[in-house]
Amino acid sequence: MIGSGNVGTHLAKVLFEKGYEIVQVFSRDKGKAALLANQVNAEAITDLNLLRRSADLYILAVKDDAILELSTKLKLSGIVVHTSGTASMESIAAISDKIGVFYPLQTFSRERNIEWYSLPICLEANKEDILQSLEHLAKNLSNCVVSLSSEDRRWLHLAAVFVNNFANHLLLEAKTITDSRNIPFEILRALAVETALKAFSIGPFEAQTGPAKRGDSQTLQKQLNMLPDENIKIVYRLLSEAIQKQKS
Amino acid sequence: MIGSGNVGTHLAKVLFEKGYEIVQVFSRDKGKAALLANQVNAEAITDLNLLRRSADLYILAVKDDAILELSTKLKLSGIVVHTSGTASMESIAAISDKIGVFYPLQTFSRERNIEWYSLPICLEANKEDILQSLEHLAKNLSNCVVSLSSEDRRWLHLAAVFVNNFANHLLLEAKTITDSRNIPFEILRALAVETALKAFSIGPFEAQTGPAKRGDSQTLQKQLNMLPDENIKIVYRLLSEAIQKQKS
Repeated sequence: MIGSGNVGTHLAKVLFEKGYEIVQVFSRDKGKAALLANQVNAEAITDLNLLRRSADLYILAVKDDAILELSTKLKLSGIVVHTSGTASMESIAAISDKIGVFYPLQTFSRERNIEWYSLPICLEANKEDILQSLEHLAKNLSNCVVSLSSEDRRWLHLAAVFVNNFANHLLLEAKTITDSRNIPFEILRALAVETALKAFSIGPFEAQTGPAKRGDSQTLQKQLNMLPDENIKIVYRLLSEAIQKQKS
Repeated sequence: MIGSGNVGTHLAKVLFEKGYEIVQVFSRDKGKAALLANQVNAEAITDLNLLRRSADLYILAVKDDAILELSTKLKLSGIVVHTSGTASMESIAAISDKIGVFYPLQTFSRERNIEWYSLPICLEANKEDILQSLEHLAKNLSNCVVSLSSEDRRWLHLAAVFVNNFANHLLLEAKTITDSRNIPFEILRALAVETALKAFSIGPFEAQTGPAKRGDSQTLQKQLNMLPDENIKIVYRLLSEAIQKQKS
């Protein structure tokens, strides 16, 4: 396991739990390498020259710019995959003849357990037998394994930015509002969960409700006036306009 | 029950299920009044002059502009509440001496069942004994009943617009992207649900991940270039900037 960030940590741990041997954990940060290595009974290394040549699979769970850097330094003979939503498979072509992508579509934080069995794992490989090996591995973790091209994965990752990063930021804006009034943020939990469930049950177009959807311009104007910050006003206006423009 | 929209329908049905007698359902639309009235064993009326004077509670589950209209037409002696997140309690003061607010904080659609037991119900009343009556009623539906001023409720509703309406619109933008690539939208479901759960578990600031949070300007620029529409580009840029600016 090359990388000990959120993805590397969760992935190494689930692989270890499923009985796979994690030989080594590499991180430039000695403490992080040791922390994860201890949890999965592996050797911690901070020097890529110490990488064992005998592993069946090398997983690059690192940031996109680190993938580029590694691809100029590493030359391996085993299967090498990265876990990125945006980097192309070809970006690691210089490392090995046997390359692929193992992209788990989820938001990983150290503090949260991951439900792997329903987690989509998106695969790509440069050879059919490598794809089959990766599928075998992925299906041991999840019942949602899909094969996607680099191009499709790039689009899926963009969609995921809207679903996770941007939606999470809206939750932060909501918390700023409730905090300012000493209203418990928790009160919005059921609404947030139902928002997600409903959009996937009846579709996000059919699911839309609220002042913008109803064309209630009086409420829209009042709420716009309530917002204290210019940037958040612009977000409010743009999203309200987008909702009003939306046709089925 | 005055109104037979999404809120009126779900609320009348749960009250009926809990053993409350729904005497009448009013709607200007005869078909809608009859549809709901049939489901809750009530009389359907389309003329406010036919409203029985003997009811314990009149629930105005109508749009905000209809609340204003009703407040000039109706004069009642029972308890009168509205279900709006934004309208003040005082907006119905002309209707009765006994007024209040019964605001269920959830997104209601005809196609979705509502889990009432965890649904926050926000109450307000102009007299202590009326608040107690409303509390008694609300606690029969939900274990999350809170008392909120009109001012706090207005802010909570604004927060709810971010949590539901705007987050749902982001899901629609995501679906537009996956549809354009023939990727099943369903693949994003686990991510959307985890987004909501994680923000309320560890907090939305701590929960943030992704290219904007990492300051990965290369990916941000690439994704911006991928987006086909100018408005959605602006939303992408503003939300990414807002995430990058956020300090704990």
